[in-house]
Amino acid sequence: MGEEISNKQVILNNYVKTSVKESDMLLRTSKIQLKIPSGCDGAVLVKNLYLSCDPFILLRIKEEHYIPPYKLDCPLIVFGVSKVLDSSLPNFKTGDLVWGHTRSEEYSLIKDPDILFKIHDKDLPLSYYTGILGMPGMTAYVGLFELCSPKKGETVYVSAASGAIGQLVGQFAKSAGCYVVGSAGSKEKVDLLKNKFGFDEAFNYKEEQDYNAALKRYFPDGIDIYFESVGGKMLEAVLSNMRHHGRVAVCGMISQYNIEQLEGVHNLLYLLTKRIRMEGFATFEHYHLYPKFLEMVVPLIKEEKITYVEDITQGIESMPGAIVGLFSGRNVGKQVVVVARE
Amino acid sequence: MGEEISNKQVILNNYVKTSVKESDMLLRTSKIQLKIPSGCDGAVLVKNLYLSCDPFILLRIKEEHYIPPYKLDCPLIVFGVSKVLDSSLPNFKTGDLVWGHTRSEEYSLIKDPDILFKIHDKDLPLSYYTGILGMPGMTAYVGLFELCSPKKGETVYVSAASGAIGQLVGQFAKSAGCYVVGSAGSKEKVDLLKNKFGFDEAFNYKEEQDYNAALKRYFPDGIDIYFESVGGKMLEAVLSNMRHHGRVAVCGMISQYNIEQLEGVHNLLYLLTKRIRMEGFATFEHYHLYPKFLEMVVPLIKEEKITYVEDITQGIESMPGAIVGLFSGRNVGKQVVVVARE
Repeated sequence: MGEEISNKQVILNNYVKTSVKESDMLLRTSKIQLKIPSGCDGAVLVKNLYLSCDPFILLRIKEEHYIPPYKLDCPLIVFGVSKVLDSSLPNFKTGDLVWGHTRSEEYSLIKDPDILFKIHDKDLPLSYYTGILGMPGMTAYVGLFELCSPKKGETVYVSAASGAIGQLVGQFAKSAGCYVVGSAGSKEKVDLLKNKFGFDEAFNYKEEQDYNAALKRYFPDGIDIYFESVGGKMLEAVLSNMRHHGRVAVCGMISQYNIEQLEGVHNLLYLLTKRIRMEGFATFEHYHLYPKFLEMVVPLIKEEKITYVEDITQGIESMPGAIVGLFSGRNVGKQVVVVARE
Repeated sequence: MGEEISNKQVILNNYVKTSVKESDMLLRTSKIQLKIPSGCDGAVLVKNLYLSCDPFILLRIKEEHYIPPYKLDCPLIVFGVSKVLDSSLPNFKTGDLVWGHTRSEEYSLIKDPDILFKIHDKDLPLSYYTGILGMPGMTAYVGLFELCSPKKGETVYVSAASGAIGQLVGQFAKSAGCYVVGSAGSKEKVDLLKNKFGFDEAFNYKEEQDYNAALKRYFPDGIDIYFESVGGKMLEAVLSNMRHHGRVAVCGMISQYNIEQLEGVHNLLYLLTKRIRMEGFATFEHYHLYPKFLEMVVPLIKEEKITYVEDITQGIESMPGAIVGLFSGRNVGKQVVVVARE
């Protein structure tokens, strides 16, 4: 029998109808044994160090079944960086650091570790494995390079551009020789995009009455690639401004996660007349590319050729607020919760 | 100086706001010399035999600029089968039969014959080069095989399935081992789909209150490939019923060409959650595949392994009515106008 200790958890209290509130989640203290129980072959027991707040969470705390909803009264399945305390699998050993699917609690028994990677390079900040070196980094890489094949001189528009994924998409696209414009929801974020992340241009979408006019201003000759994280009216404006053979990588549609009536997109006829390709993707289907991605991105980080900004809150107790903040756009950069430093 | 003779033309009288009427086009008798005038290097003079009525025409008689509108008071640029009367190009000789871009009139001086192909195989009905052996055939081929890569056992839905393109998509998909369901707008067309074109199932969309429910009935396990010719509410219902990694080849959106307010599609979030690829294409960008296409399709026709139905009207005077009929769904099969038999 392992030691039984207390385990603070963030659990889902009720399914969210429209806007998520902190009270939709509850903090609960449970107990957990620090040893894998018998009958749990294939499980890994971890201590969570960093938990990642990602927009997909918002899809799963609703009951609409676009993707399977979370279970009520349970911790949320999220990405995190964790330390292995006990393992029944030969590829994970006690003391290993890992990143991948875990849950919103201090300690997790991961019964089905299908998305769990051992961390080999410990020279870089561990929290980066919730972002630039983890799922968001892979998402930026796959969406931009695998789906959109950017060519030198092409124009790229990134919405939600200061977030975990957007900031990387913009920098990857710049490194591919593209002209890159991003949008975000505050002056501070726009400054970040232009002055820190090296976007060619950036604008505050909240100050634009007419997205169509804004995009025409920044892309007088049209958009070749759109990295889509917003949906709705923004997508409609982008389609109006796309060039022939434009490509849209659908990574998210955050504007649509939190509203009762989804917005219609009225100009899909442009897909036909401009021969546009629009494609959704799920990063978990592309993890075979992870080693290739690390080969590209680790040197960029070590040589300081890429900038990465995190917004870190302290303690598992801060997680409900951090999740709610994703929607109001409160976070600047990748939203991470530190649960423990080691 | 060549002989000057009368040339009946169908010209565009005014741009269409909502539904096209016969009176939006006018019949006019002009004059033409049956010789290429000096200063028209690169031109070909043809006598039009068959003129093709295709849904894209409806996009160009409106002024919305999804694609460049036709010029007022001019014959419409359409596909046709023609006989060369005079040529300034070495690859076309007097007496050659050709298919490609011509105009809605008896004789056309084609100044810029960028889409014009010599007809080599004359064993087959000449009118077929406006359909199964021409642009619609290539469109079915490119959309299905190049964009959607059908695999044996996959499910395919074809809307506007009894039209020039739809009937071919269905038969090509059957030949690839797919389960194929089509929809059309009358009992007669549905019978054609099931009994003549060999679709596994077919339904009359006009009798369905709820497209979503209809598709669930025919595709209980979902749709892998959608050959899109309709748009709007039908597209929305299809996205709800698509399987993961579904593919949508956007060939047309005929429901949207003739209405004032385009319909919104509200569930594009499915592109993300089901990793759907949706892609518009233009057949004219794929004509390098035409010889490969002919290699496939000509034997199918000669061995009677494929069925092709045309709806032929007589005389250039019938063209405005035939174009209007495309929208009310009056035609059964490919709509062709015979202008002259030789």
